[in-house]
Amino acid sequence: MRTVTYGAACSLDGFIAGSGGEIDWLHSSRDVSEIMRDYWKSIDTILWGRKTWDQALRMGGAGGGGKTSKIRSYVFSRTLTSLDANGAELVRGEAGAFVRDLKQRTGKGICLMGGGELARSLLDADVVDDIGMNVHPVLLGSGVPMFLDPRHRVLLELMSSRKIDGGCVYSMYRVKH
Amino acid sequence: MRTVTYGAACSLDGFIAGSGGEIDWLHSSRDVSEIMRDYWKSIDTILWGRKTWDQALRMGGAGGGGKTSKIRSYVFSRTLTSLDANGAELVRGEAGAFVRDLKQRTGKGICLMGGGELARSLLDADVVDDIGMNVHPVLLGSGVPMFLDPRHRVLLELMSSRKIDGGCVYSMYRVKH
Repeated sequence: MRTVTYGAACSLDGFIAGSGGEIDWLHSSRDVSEIMRDYWKSIDTILWGRKTWDQALRMGGAGGGGKTSKIRSYVFSRTLTSLDANGAELVRGEAGAFVRDLKQRTGKGICLMGGGELARSLLDADVVDDIGMNVHPVLLGSGVPMFLDPRHRVLLELMSSRKIDGGCVYSMYRVKH
Repeated sequence: MRTVTYGAACSLDGFIAGSGGEIDWLHSSRDVSEIMRDYWKSIDTILWGRKTWDQALRMGGAGGGGKTSKIRSYVFSRTLTSLDANGAELVRGEAGAFVRDLKQRTGKGICLMGGGELARSLLDADVVDDIGMNVHPVLLGSGVPMFLDPRHRVLLELMSSRKIDGGCVYSMYRVKH
């Protein structure tokens, strides 16, 4: 069965962006590039929350990929009625059921793009398998949280943890279903 | 100058206790015992927030220590007028100024006991030097946060990070003043 991974870079107090959306504290390094390069090879599908999708479009980083891309994008929204992006598919129904079905199909890994609302919903539905965190050495105080309340206690197994460049700690967890 | 350390065990989503005060998810191990044994040797002073002090009293774990103890306890409160504990001292004034003065005096390390309100106040006043976190492999969803908004961005330097028993990750940070 395909694996759904929720991964993000966050501050020590658990924010993936500042309260004004600031990400100037993010540290890019060869370590991060290598981790991401290996990760992108392992997936063929991205699940987007609507807000993250909009933000990525504004920054030029999102897209269905069109006919040439091997990445399939699904954007989850209860408010949108259509999606203005070639190749990306809008999902308006219940996210947990959709992803549960998606995991049964043939394919590579599935990437869950933060923010926290889609992650909360999919953790609540118990369809997230792995959590990756790149914890940065900063307290932001407020902002966009990596985790919202999944409404039940989620037990995890630590798979790996290591210091990487920039005083970051990169850890991988597996969800105990 | 003496060092003020804020340390706690927390969930991956940053809570030091569940919303009903639950700490049943805390993992004790030889690793933790050794870390704490070495740490207790390095300090002679504990700073308590009033709520944490009350809770520790209820659990039988707090106390000024009386005449025989080498640990000096200070309890910070704006509402209490006296303290019913032999050897512990009530601090009603501005916490940051008090701790700034305390750090100038002769002595060993100073331990800041969570919860987050006293920590917020002392991080805000920039008198906290080290932050230690023992991150447990669980998402609690809600509860008592380790960090409240210190009202400014706090830059940190990662001193060490290692996996310890129970799938925990123990990291030490130094505050960049």
